[in-house]
Amino acid sequence: MAVYTDVTEGELSAFLQNYPVGQLLSYKGIAEGTENSNFLLHTTAGSFILTLYEKRVEKADLPFFLGLMDHLAKKGISCPLPVHRHDGSMIGTLAGRPAVIITFLEGMWLRKPGVVHCREVGEALAAMHLAGADFTMHRANALAIDGWRKLWEASRARANEVEPGLAAEVDGDFADFERNWPCDLPTGIIHADLFPDNVFFLGEKLSGLIDFYFACDDFYAYDLATCLNAWCFEKDFSFNLTKGTALLAGYQSVRPLSEAEKQALPMLARGSALRFMLTRLYDWLTVPDGGLVMKRDPTEYIRRIRFHRAIGSASEYGLK
Amino acid sequence: MAVYTDVTEGELSAFLQNYPVGQLLSYKGIAEGTENSNFLLHTTAGSFILTLYEKRVEKADLPFFLGLMDHLAKKGISCPLPVHRHDGSMIGTLAGRPAVIITFLEGMWLRKPGVVHCREVGEALAAMHLAGADFTMHRANALAIDGWRKLWEASRARANEVEPGLAAEVDGDFADFERNWPCDLPTGIIHADLFPDNVFFLGEKLSGLIDFYFACDDFYAYDLATCLNAWCFEKDFSFNLTKGTALLAGYQSVRPLSEAEKQALPMLARGSALRFMLTRLYDWLTVPDGGLVMKRDPTEYIRRIRFHRAIGSASEYGLK
Repeated sequence: MAVYTDVTEGELSAFLQNYPVGQLLSYKGIAEGTENSNFLLHTTAGSFILTLYEKRVEKADLPFFLGLMDHLAKKGISCPLPVHRHDGSMIGTLAGRPAVIITFLEGMWLRKPGVVHCREVGEALAAMHLAGADFTMHRANALAIDGWRKLWEASRARANEVEPGLAAEVDGDFADFERNWPCDLPTGIIHADLFPDNVFFLGEKLSGLIDFYFACDDFYAYDLATCLNAWCFEKDFSFNLTKGTALLAGYQSVRPLSEAEKQALPMLARGSALRFMLTRLYDWLTVPDGGLVMKRDPTEYIRRIRFHRAIGSASEYGLK
Repeated sequence: MAVYTDVTEGELSAFLQNYPVGQLLSYKGIAEGTENSNFLLHTTAGSFILTLYEKRVEKADLPFFLGLMDHLAKKGISCPLPVHRHDGSMIGTLAGRPAVIITFLEGMWLRKPGVVHCREVGEALAAMHLAGADFTMHRANALAIDGWRKLWEASRARANEVEPGLAAEVDGDFADFERNWPCDLPTGIIHADLFPDNVFFLGEKLSGLIDFYFACDDFYAYDLATCLNAWCFEKDFSFNLTKGTALLAGYQSVRPLSEAEKQALPMLARGSALRFMLTRLYDWLTVPDGGLVMKRDPTEYIRRIRFHRAIGSASEYGLK
């Protein structure tokens, strides 16, 4: 939770003259987003989000992320729409950083999502997969297996500080992935970070998806596996089968899974849990305490990896 | 800049049922306010600020602060209006903390205020002083001379770490205050913290005053002296006489200063600079690095104290 970069009223007003967003009435730094600085703007034309991209986001990737949001919004997915500048472009410069204006979505992200919300997320994820199928830009998943290996190489020597025996345990996972990671599943644009703080609801209805800054090309079922990890475990690390059933049913009501995807789901869920464990572990070991980046406990995902390792078939997640 | 306490959608919805504010559409933690947790709410009835009071604010003082905002708003001062609950009260409980809903004011606080803004602030400060004159509640200034002494006693032993010789220098200031601090100036409700981040503007026009959580009874001219410190010094610590002239003229256009107030102004400005130096110094020496409380450099106010010490008469601030 952070605003890394403040903006003066003069530079913001000058910046906004490039956009069809009316007159500025107020702007507040908001305590959301771990990678960028975000401001909520009120103007005579409504509410907008101003995002300044900090160094963790690769500038060369911005046309992909913004083009994707533009594409999805035009296909009827409720997600922020980048506001085009008078010259047609989407990316400007503010306070020395790449900066964009996107439309504001009403809705709350849920600190305590329930079963009904899991079904909604499954439906929305599948709809996003279908809507992205004809998006023409591509982006490799920087946090696929090769990326995990790099994170692991940087963390392995100190992994046992987090939990004794963790280094050998994760080495075993990597060995399994070498043998059993699927290689031929339906692939396309995935969100790759569809955690509860990136999904807005109004009551029980999903009102929007946000934060496409990990979106990339990868297996659709891997995205679904990430949602199983993000939405269906309770705070005590127990897996809520009712939520899993709802999430998977919601997904399949829009895009039915193939047999190969169903069979691969436990391995994908284990890989996804490893991916989030590794980024958390890396931050845990390398980011100084008290910095602006919030460090999250990697052990929450060690628990998930162990759960998935013991899964025999996707029906144990509630898959019908 | 911080949100110390997060709020779940369930407890927030339950809380809002006590207020005539319509249905919740979104809430975002905002990165403003150093003492409390603040959220910007959108509801079907408009925009509101939700404030959760953290431990730095004395709960017993809340009726004074909220009553004052209520009083001033009804007198035509543009400031947040506390929204009354259905039972008529203003203070609820949320996430275990005292919490209130106040109306949202459009406008920007200025990172780079100019001369025209200084005049506006002077006028608004005087208008606030007049409007508060018939407010019936009272609150002693916890950061008057006795409060300064306590801060100084807690910091003096390490003051020379900040700048060699500082301890003896400030001892000298206290000796002067014992002899020369005024005791019989016009007194009433003052804002006591009217820095640029507590004043909103739309273009060149002042649109509102916020953050009354230091308000108290003290000399009106002391409040004006605080504004001289907060608005009329440049980043290089030079005093901008044009801004000082504008601030003082704006104030006197609404509430002319008495001869005694004019004569006291250099001493009041020096005392006010000492007050902000001391709270900064105390935080500097006691708050751990990397905590949520932003530590501000006390030396900015040491420079101001020295400037005021050399002032012979208030005409040097631009007073006519």
